[in-house]
Amino acid sequence: MNNDLAIAQSVTPRPITEVAAALGLTLNDLELYGTYKAKIGYSAIERHLNDPVGSEGKIVLMTAITPTTAGEGKTTVTVGLGQALCRLGKRAIVTIREPSMGPVFGLKGGAAGGGYAQVIPMEDINLHFTGDMHAISAAHNLLAAAIDNHLHHGNRLNIDPLTISFPRVVDMNDRALRHIVVGLGGKQGGIPRESQFFITVASEVMAILCLSNHLSELKDRLGKIVVGQNRAGEPITAADLKVHGAMTVLLRDALKPNLVQTLEGTPAFVHGGPFGNIAHGCSSIIATKLARRLGEIVVTEAGFGADLGFEKYCDIVAPTAGLPPDAVVIVATIRALKTHGGVRKQKLDEENLAALEAGLVNLERHVGIVQQVKVPFVIAINRFSSDSVKEIALVQDYAQSKNWLVAPCDVWGQGGKGGEELAAKVLQALEQPAHFTPFYTEEGSLFTKMETIAKRVYGANGIALEPAASTQLRWLEKNGFGRLRVCMAKTQYSFSDDPKAGGAPTNFILHIRELRLSAGAGFVVALAGDIMTMPGLPEVPAAENIDIDDTGRIVGLF
Amino acid sequence: MNNDLAIAQSVTPRPITEVAAALGLTLNDLELYGTYKAKIGYSAIERHLNDPVGSEGKIVLMTAITPTTAGEGKTTVTVGLGQALCRLGKRAIVTIREPSMGPVFGLKGGAAGGGYAQVIPMEDINLHFTGDMHAISAAHNLLAAAIDNHLHHGNRLNIDPLTISFPRVVDMNDRALRHIVVGLGGKQGGIPRESQFFITVASEVMAILCLSNHLSELKDRLGKIVVGQNRAGEPITAADLKVHGAMTVLLRDALKPNLVQTLEGTPAFVHGGPFGNIAHGCSSIIATKLARRLGEIVVTEAGFGADLGFEKYCDIVAPTAGLPPDAVVIVATIRALKTHGGVRKQKLDEENLAALEAGLVNLERHVGIVQQVKVPFVIAINRFSSDSVKEIALVQDYAQSKNWLVAPCDVWGQGGKGGEELAAKVLQALEQPAHFTPFYTEEGSLFTKMETIAKRVYGANGIALEPAASTQLRWLEKNGFGRLRVCMAKTQYSFSDDPKAGGAPTNFILHIRELRLSAGAGFVVALAGDIMTMPGLPEVPAAENIDIDDTGRIVGLF
Repeated sequence: MNNDLAIAQSVTPRPITEVAAALGLTLNDLELYGTYKAKIGYSAIERHLNDPVGSEGKIVLMTAITPTTAGEGKTTVTVGLGQALCRLGKRAIVTIREPSMGPVFGLKGGAAGGGYAQVIPMEDINLHFTGDMHAISAAHNLLAAAIDNHLHHGNRLNIDPLTISFPRVVDMNDRALRHIVVGLGGKQGGIPRESQFFITVASEVMAILCLSNHLSELKDRLGKIVVGQNRAGEPITAADLKVHGAMTVLLRDALKPNLVQTLEGTPAFVHGGPFGNIAHGCSSIIATKLARRLGEIVVTEAGFGADLGFEKYCDIVAPTAGLPPDAVVIVATIRALKTHGGVRKQKLDEENLAALEAGLVNLERHVGIVQQVKVPFVIAINRFSSDSVKEIALVQDYAQSKNWLVAPCDVWGQGGKGGEELAAKVLQALEQPAHFTPFYTEEGSLFTKMETIAKRVYGANGIALEPAASTQLRWLEKNGFGRLRVCMAKTQYSFSDDPKAGGAPTNFILHIRELRLSAGAGFVVALAGDIMTMPGLPEVPAAENIDIDDTGRIVGLF
Repeated sequence: MNNDLAIAQSVTPRPITEVAAALGLTLNDLELYGTYKAKIGYSAIERHLNDPVGSEGKIVLMTAITPTTAGEGKTTVTVGLGQALCRLGKRAIVTIREPSMGPVFGLKGGAAGGGYAQVIPMEDINLHFTGDMHAISAAHNLLAAAIDNHLHHGNRLNIDPLTISFPRVVDMNDRALRHIVVGLGGKQGGIPRESQFFITVASEVMAILCLSNHLSELKDRLGKIVVGQNRAGEPITAADLKVHGAMTVLLRDALKPNLVQTLEGTPAFVHGGPFGNIAHGCSSIIATKLARRLGEIVVTEAGFGADLGFEKYCDIVAPTAGLPPDAVVIVATIRALKTHGGVRKQKLDEENLAALEAGLVNLERHVGIVQQVKVPFVIAINRFSSDSVKEIALVQDYAQSKNWLVAPCDVWGQGGKGGEELAAKVLQALEQPAHFTPFYTEEGSLFTKMETIAKRVYGANGIALEPAASTQLRWLEKNGFGRLRVCMAKTQYSFSDDPKAGGAPTNFILHIRELRLSAGAGFVVALAGDIMTMPGLPEVPAAENIDIDDTGRIVGLF
C-alpha cells in the first residue's frame, strides 16, 4: 500500500448513481460513463441553477503558500477536507480541476489527490476520463485548421499571417512541437509560416469552457477569440471565420460537469483544468455553481499560491460567475516553510526550527493577501512524516498568537479522519461574517489592474512594461480591449518575477514582458516571465513504466 | 424529413441496455456511455469468444463495384440489410467502421448510413463517439513524442533522424500539417527535422487496434511498430523506445467494441475505422468475432470496391482473425454503372440503357473477383429515385442470365422493409456451400503477393517497381519483413493505377512507387499512386453550417 494507484485500486467505489442519488440527482439527470463516472445533463443543471427557492451552499476556497519542489499537497487537502466535512455530517462536495494527460507520461505524479485523499477512478481521471480534454483539443484545432484553410483559399479576410497568435494544441508533452513551420510541401500544403503547439490545458478554449455558464455563452465567447490581425491591424475572430458554432458542437458534452467520488464516497466534480498562469487555473464555474445548489459546503481549489490562483479566483472567477468565497483555507507544509527559510531539499528531513521560523514570512504574506478580500480563513498544516512535534507546534503557536484559525491535518495518511480538526476549524470560519471584495474593480485600465495586483498582492513597488508590452497595450486599448480583466502569468515560486526569490521578497519592480489577448475568456494575460506552454518529456519518461498487467490492470501509473 | 440528421433525430432509440439484452448481454457486460451507447467489457468478450459450445453466426461481407462520385451507399445497404434480416426474423448484427471526425467538418456527409438505414445516435457516432479516435491519436502521438524526446536526450539508440517515418496524427482535415518542420526554437525546442501529420484513421495504431484479438496482442503489435532506422540501417521499434506498454494503457478502452443500434433497433457494432488504402479498411475483428458469437448473421463492410476492401478482407482480415465470409454482397447502383459506361455526372438523371449496359463490365469484373474466393454472392442494386424501371430490369435480367443472385433494394427510403427482397436472396446465398480461399498464400514473397493481387484482382498484366520501391523491397527482405502480407494502396476509382480509367481496364502494368512498412499491423503497404493521408478543408467547410440551436440540439451536421 505504498503508492497512490494501489490505494486507489484497493477501494471498491460506490456506483456513481448512488453518489448522485445522495445529492438528489436521479438516473435521468445523469449521462453515465461506465459505472463510476457520470456527466450531469443540461436539464438537471438548469433545473437546479434556476430554482428560485433552491438552497445555496457555502464555498470554501483552497489556496496555499508559495509552492516549492517539496510539494504542498493542496489537492490532497482539498479532497481530504471534503471527506472530513462529510464525516462531521455535512453534505460537502469537492470541485477540482481535471488533470492534463500529457504530464502523466512525463514525470511521476498525478493530479487527483494522494494517499487516502484521492478522487477515483484515478486511472480514468488521469487519462482520457470523459473525453473533455480531447474535445477541447478538437474544438481548438478546428479553429486552427480554419485559419490556415482561410489563408490557402485566397485569404478573403486579408489576415496577416505574421500576426497569427492562435496555436494548435495536443494533450501531450511534446517539446519538438514548441516551435514549428507549417504549410510546407508546395501548392497542396498550404501557406508556410511559423507556428506553435501548446499543451491542451493552455488553450484559450479551456479557459472559456471553465468560465461559461451555459452553451450559448460558450458559443458567444468562442466567437470572440482573436486569432490574429488583418493587414490593417484590426482583430480577426473565430466568428469572422464562422467556426464558433461547430466548435460549440464539439464541446456540447465537455461543458457538462463530471461527477466522481473520493475514496470515502464524497461527491466530487472534476471538471475543466486551465493553466494556472496563462489562464485562471480554477475548475469550471458551471460545476461549482451546480455543487453550491446540491451541497451544503463546496470545497474548491485555486491554482498555485494565494498570489496566483487565489487572486485569479477573486478577480476573474468570483465576479464573472457570482461565486464569492465564504471561507479560505491556506495550505502550508513544514517542509515548504523550511524551504522558504533557506533549507535545501536534501536537509528537509531534519528538524530545523530556526529555518521554519524564518520561512513563516511566506505564510504571513499569503495571509496578508487573503485578509484583503475580507473573508474568514484557516491555515491548514498538511503533515508529512518527517515533521517534528516541535515544528508543528511552532507554526500552530505562531498562528494562534496572531489570532488566526489553524489546524494540522493528515488526510494523506488517514483520509477524512485525519482532517476532522481542520474541518471543525473551517466550520468555525464559516460562522464568521464574510464581506468579499475583489482586489480591483472592473472599470480600471489594464495598466491600473496590473499595477494593483503587483502592489497589493505581490508586494512590488510597481510595474515596468517592456517595449513589446507597451506596444501591445496601445493596440489592446485602441481595439476595445482596454477594460478587460488581467490574468497575470508569473512564476509560482516567488511573489516576484524571479523564481529564485523565495520567502517574502520586497522592494522589487514587476517586469511585464508581453501582453496576450484572451478575448473569449475575457482577460489579457500579462507575462512577467517565461511561461512554458508546452512541456517536454524527461530523459526517462514515466511512460516507460506504465503498462498493462496480464489481468488487464494498469500498473506503474504513479 | 429531407436530411439524414433530421431522420436520425426523429426516432426515439431503444435504451442500449435493451438492445444488449436481446443479445444476451447483461448490464454487467456493458460499460455505458450515456443511454444509447455502450462498450462491451473484456470479461463478457472473453466469456463469449472462449465458449467451447457457443454458436457461431454466418458472416455476410459487403463490398461494391468501383466507386464513383455518384455514390454507391454501401454503408447504407449494410445497415439496411441488417434491418431487413431482423424483419425476416433473423438475429442479425451489423458491424461497421467508426467514421473519422475530420471530414465531417470538411465536405457534407457522414459515415453512419443514410436515410432510413442509419446507425444512431448519428451525431455522437460522427463526432467524439466513445473516444476511440482520440485514444488512438493519443497513443500514436505518445510514440511520436518519445521519438523526438529520444533524439533530444542524446539519441542512445543512434536513430538516424532522416529515416524517421512515423508521423504525428490529428483527427482533423488540416492541410497545413501535411508537411512541417518540427524541433525549431533552439536548444529547448528539440532537434529540427522534417515531419508530417496524418489524419488519425491513417495511423498504423488504428490498423493494429482493428487487427488485435486481445490486449496482450495489441501490446505486442504496438511494440513491433517500426518508426525509423538507426545509422546502421536497422529498424527501430516502439518496443526499443519502451512506450508500447503506455500506448496499450491509452487504448485499454478503445479496444472494447462499441454497441449502438440502427434506426430500427438492430444491434450494430461500430468499432475501428482504418483507411481503406494505406490500411485494410475494415472494422475491428474483435467486434466481428463477438458479433458472430452473439448473432445468427453478421453483416460487415469492407472498404471501397471488391478490388480494394474485399481483397484486403480476404487476404488480411480473414486469415488473421479466422473470419472467412459465408456470403458476399456486391452493391451496385444504376448511376455508378452509367458513370462507368461513360455518362457525365450532369446527365445521370436521364435514362440511358446503352451506357448502363456498357458499364456492366465493371460489375462483371467485380463478380469475377468475388468468384475467385469461392463464396456465394448476391448483387444488390441500391435504388435511387432517378433510376428507371427499364434500367433496373436491365441489370436484373443481365445478372439472372448469368445465374447470379440479384435484388434491388431501397433501404435509404424505406429502411428494412425496402431490403426484404435482398435479405431473402442473402439467406438463399447462405444456404449454398462456401469454400473460402484467399487470393494468395502467406508463404509467398512480397513481390509475388503484389503480383498476384495485380493480376488476379486488378486484371493487370504485371507489376513494375519504381527504383525507390525496389530499394525498399531489398531493405524489407534483409530485415525480416519479406513474408508479411501486402496492403495495396491504389486509387479506388479504377482497377488500374489511373483514377480516370473507369469501367474495366485491361492491358496495363501496375506501377508500385513506394513500399511502407506497417510491421505492427503485419503488412507492407504498396503504394500504386498518390495516397492522401491528410485531407484539407474546402473553401467553404461544412463547419460553417454546423451549429447548436437554442434548445442545445445540433443542426447542420448533414
